[in-house]
Amino acid sequence: MLTLPALPADTGLNLMQRLEEIAQFSEGGPGVTRRPFTAEHRRANEMIATWMRQAGLEVRIDAAGTLIGRRPGPPGAKTLLIGSHQDTIRQGGKYDGIFGIALPILVLEMLRERSLPYAVEVLAFADEEGVRFPTALMGPRVLAGTFDSANLQKTDKDGETLAAALADFGGDPAGIAAARRDPDDLLGYLEMHIEQGPVLESLGLPVGIVTAICGIERWTVELTGQAAHAGTTPMDLRRDAFAGAAEIALAVESHCRETEGLVGIVASVSVLPNVPNAIPGKATFSVELRASEDSIREAAAAAISEKVEAVSARRGLNYSLTKTYAQKAVPCDPWLRGTLARSLVQGGFRPHRLMSGATHDASAMADLCPVAMLFTRCRDGLSHHPDEAITAEDAQASVACLASFLQMLDPD
Amino acid sequence: MLTLPALPADTGLNLMQRLEEIAQFSEGGPGVTRRPFTAEHRRANEMIATWMRQAGLEVRIDAAGTLIGRRPGPPGAKTLLIGSHQDTIRQGGKYDGIFGIALPILVLEMLRERSLPYAVEVLAFADEEGVRFPTALMGPRVLAGTFDSANLQKTDKDGETLAAALADFGGDPAGIAAARRDPDDLLGYLEMHIEQGPVLESLGLPVGIVTAICGIERWTVELTGQAAHAGTTPMDLRRDAFAGAAEIALAVESHCRETEGLVGIVASVSVLPNVPNAIPGKATFSVELRASEDSIREAAAAAISEKVEAVSARRGLNYSLTKTYAQKAVPCDPWLRGTLARSLVQGGFRPHRLMSGATHDASAMADLCPVAMLFTRCRDGLSHHPDEAITAEDAQASVACLASFLQMLDPD
Repeated sequence: MLTLPALPADTGLNLMQRLEEIAQFSEGGPGVTRRPFTAEHRRANEMIATWMRQAGLEVRIDAAGTLIGRRPGPPGAKTLLIGSHQDTIRQGGKYDGIFGIALPILVLEMLRERSLPYAVEVLAFADEEGVRFPTALMGPRVLAGTFDSANLQKTDKDGETLAAALADFGGDPAGIAAARRDPDDLLGYLEMHIEQGPVLESLGLPVGIVTAICGIERWTVELTGQAAHAGTTPMDLRRDAFAGAAEIALAVESHCRETEGLVGIVASVSVLPNVPNAIPGKATFSVELRASEDSIREAAAAAISEKVEAVSARRGLNYSLTKTYAQKAVPCDPWLRGTLARSLVQGGFRPHRLMSGATHDASAMADLCPVAMLFTRCRDGLSHHPDEAITAEDAQASVACLASFLQMLDPD
Repeated sequence: MLTLPALPADTGLNLMQRLEEIAQFSEGGPGVTRRPFTAEHRRANEMIATWMRQAGLEVRIDAAGTLIGRRPGPPGAKTLLIGSHQDTIRQGGKYDGIFGIALPILVLEMLRERSLPYAVEVLAFADEEGVRFPTALMGPRVLAGTFDSANLQKTDKDGETLAAALADFGGDPAGIAAARRDPDDLLGYLEMHIEQGPVLESLGLPVGIVTAICGIERWTVELTGQAAHAGTTPMDLRRDAFAGAAEIALAVESHCRETEGLVGIVASVSVLPNVPNAIPGKATFSVELRASEDSIREAAAAAISEKVEAVSARRGLNYSLTKTYAQKAVPCDPWLRGTLARSLVQGGFRPHRLMSGATHDASAMADLCPVAMLFTRCRDGLSHHPDEAITAEDAQASVACLASFLQMLDPD
């Protein structure tokens, strides 16, 4: 095992303090609201830039408004990207996104005097949540060359275009194509993020290694039976669309319970005529499936489609299945994951592996280079909420893991 | 078997023609809309009174606006009441209610020259549906002495009180208490009605004998779990309120399928937050149970309450059960039912017995005297709809059954 310098014991506290300080740059109301290309974003970036300079990083902003702090490497060395997003949802928390920016800057400050055999850049993306403009993940998509420039003409609720907001902020709509990065220059992209779920808390672990960012598909299922008087229609002559929906919801649940790496939910439900004394003639509901591997998700989709067909046939219902959304799984890079695992063991932590059920900047960065993610335990699995919280101990553990990772990563 | 005079073969057609004629007294729009104490009601009553006089009946209107046609009996003889309601729901059909008025008048016209050992009165109730005023079943409740006079001050959407509308129509708000009938003068109350369900059609039978008007209870069930991100929360850490609701809906269905004389439905459903990617934190739904015997309904309610408790405990949900409505079952009178059965056999029809899943004027008349009901097959089980329909053949069968019944009924 490598001998690594001990971390100052108050590093986690320092990180927590920085996260408190930057949370002030928020619109009013409970929690943190920081939309991209606003006064709050500008002030947050000024603070991040100050941190970056304090860590010895060269600071610039790219065409997409991503704030970048670079630590040069040896001549000809490749670059490791580490980042996340500065923005929040409306009335979000103090950790989602910004944790993955503040943390690597602090670690690079601590490692300022130590040499690393590669360059590092910390990326503070402007817009991951897509709250202001009807688009998201702009920063990583520009780096990967997958950004659709048509999105620049999309407007916020005040009618301002993304292009205008970006230009006003110091970005460069015309320079977006040129901001694409060359994958041959990159070692990969690492994102540190709060878990946003209850897995690590339930296991008593401060951090966990992401195996993949899940693939997602969503359907709308519509079942049509026969609305009828609930008093005068005997049980055996009914075509109850809601009872069909109930059967399918339970089938989705049990299929997912029985399948490793798969979650699924029936969550948005409407019934017609929706009165207590009429047999439901129509039931419409969403089915969402998420899996760490596309083959698992596709097999589940096939099984559940068959179930919809079988239930409908048995109950005399007509059905329609409409796929409304699909996104492939993004597997995390084995080399980066392996190094993360070794850094966890180095810190005395069990290298637990888990799927990311949510989308992250890493999802879009995967089109550019290998990606990896480390999750940090959050309280009650809560995120996207003013009460979102982590502990200083877990912040310290996360800092330690990244410091180990950076010193263990061997680009050769 | 009695030898009864053969019916004219076109009696059913005559009945159908009368039902077509009276359907013209309707507000605009598809189907029939005839609210109580309106111009349409007045014209309908004029036509009914004409039919009554043609059948030799003595016509009067009682304090509650019920049009009554009386055929006197021998001195000291009791009276058989036969009736139903003239009103419809908005955009209803041509048969619900009015069928049970036009039919007995026609039969009494046919039997005008035959002696019967009792008096008969045909009752055309003003308001069964409760569409104009927020009350219903006024006519039978006045006869039974169960009408709450406070209802006279209730208003329609134009602000007119029930008292004013009734007085203007020729009723007598002040005379309501005196309009109560003496049960000792009565043999019972018979109501002929379209089935409003699919049972007789599914069995290929023109008519059926009602065993009881079902008792009803309704609950609102609220299940509270934990709303959470559907991607980041593993299956085993979820508290999904909708999955609980689905289990309970299927339990209601299977319990009712397995229990003779019981129907039940989960029909009005709402879910929160009701978006495709959030685990439902709350599900609220109605449970309605109807049974021909109160003991069956009460046992079902107890079993389903236990199921709600068990499902909630297993899934970590909180639950509340609120009973929003309860109405006891009204059993039909064995003597009247028996006579109906003999009259069906006389006509060559199988005396099939079935529950009434809907409420009828007979429900309130049961507080006054023994009641019975005969159902006539309707097309597709459809009622409360412009397409509500019966056949002339079934009208003929119904006429024949009532004619037999009246001649078989022995008050001694």
